[in-house]
Order: sequence, then structure tokens, then C-alpha cells
Amino acid sequence: MSADVIGYIAAFFTTFSFAPQALLTLRSRDTRTLSLGMYGMFVAGVTVWLIYGVMRDDVIIIAANGITLLLSVPILSMKIYNLVWGNEKVNRNIIN
Amino acid sequence: MSADVIGYIAAFFTTFSFAPQALLTLRSRDTRTLSLGMYGMFVAGVTVWLIYGVMRDDVIIIAANGITLLLSVPILSMKIYNLVWGNEKVNRNIIN
Repeated sequence: MSADVIGYIAAFFTTFSFAPQALLTLRSRDTRTLSLGMYGMFVAGVTVWLIYGVMRDDVIIIAANGITLLLSVPILSMKIYNLVWGNEKVNRNIIN
Repeated sequence: MSADVIGYIAAFFTTFSFAPQALLTLRSRDTRTLSLGMYGMFVAGVTVWLIYGVMRDDVIIIAANGITLLLSVPILSMKIYNLVWGNEKVNRNIIN
């Protein structure tokens, strides 16, 4: 199999892996064991990947990171919503 | 800023974003709101990215995905451990 095909398979898996998490989080509205630090850094990173893709004019990078952003922003938003408006507390004993 | 530097910044953020989640999950041992589907697909995808990096002989892709794998495998392992040995149930009403 060519490296290109391997790359597409890899991008497909890592991109769409966030779909079941987004569905779970939006349906359950429960984000207690999700790390705010992770989703904050992750959404920031995927946004920078998107900028990289635009600079490189690379359609695959733009598409993969555009979809990943659409799936991860709702997860981060639900986490922030629960921290601000819900009963969820940041556990200050652990880095999260 | 060159596209290369933007790419390194993006890779740094998305790679190390899994560090706070790994710390939170290993310390709390609580994986109830983490999606099994996400971590299963994600670990599979990062493994394929690693194979892609080796095929392309690309040190950045190998390093970024190697570190991401080291950080995400413990999260997936804790989720599976809790499903098999703990009290956690797969919620069959929602895809997770």
C-alpha cells in the first residue's frame, strides 16, 4: 500500500474518532471526566493545523482539521458551559 | 512566520493536549464520560500515523505520534479496565 493511502487511513481514523465523543458528550451533557486542559489545547492546536493547511494549500490537512474542529469545539463548549453554569467543579488537586 | 514553524506549533499543541487528560484519568481513575469509541479509533489512527511517518522517514510525524500514542494508550487502557473490572457500564442507548 502506498504511503499516501496509509496517510488517508490515519487521517480518517484520528479525525472521525471525535464523532463518538461529541455524540456522547452532547447527549449525556456530562463532561466530568473530560480534561479542560486537553480540549483547550487540542482546539487551539487543530486551529493552528488549519492555518498550516491554508498556508500549504493542502486540501487534505484543511478537510481533516476542519472536520476535527467541528467535532471538538462542541465538546469544549459543553465542558466550559458545565464549569460556568453547571455544578461541575474544577478539581484543583489535579491538573485538568 | 514560515509554514514549517506553524506546523511545529500545531503538532506541539495537539500532541501535548493529551498530557492533562492522561494525568486527570490516571489520577482520578474515572473514565465515565470518556468515549470508548473515540479512544479506540484514536489510538488506531495514531498507530497508522506512526507507520506513515516511518514509511515517509519523517522524524516530526514519528515523534509527534509516538508521544501522542504514549499519552493516549493509558487513557484507553483505563477506560477498558473500568469497563471490564470496574462498575462502569457501556450506555447502550448512546453510541459511545
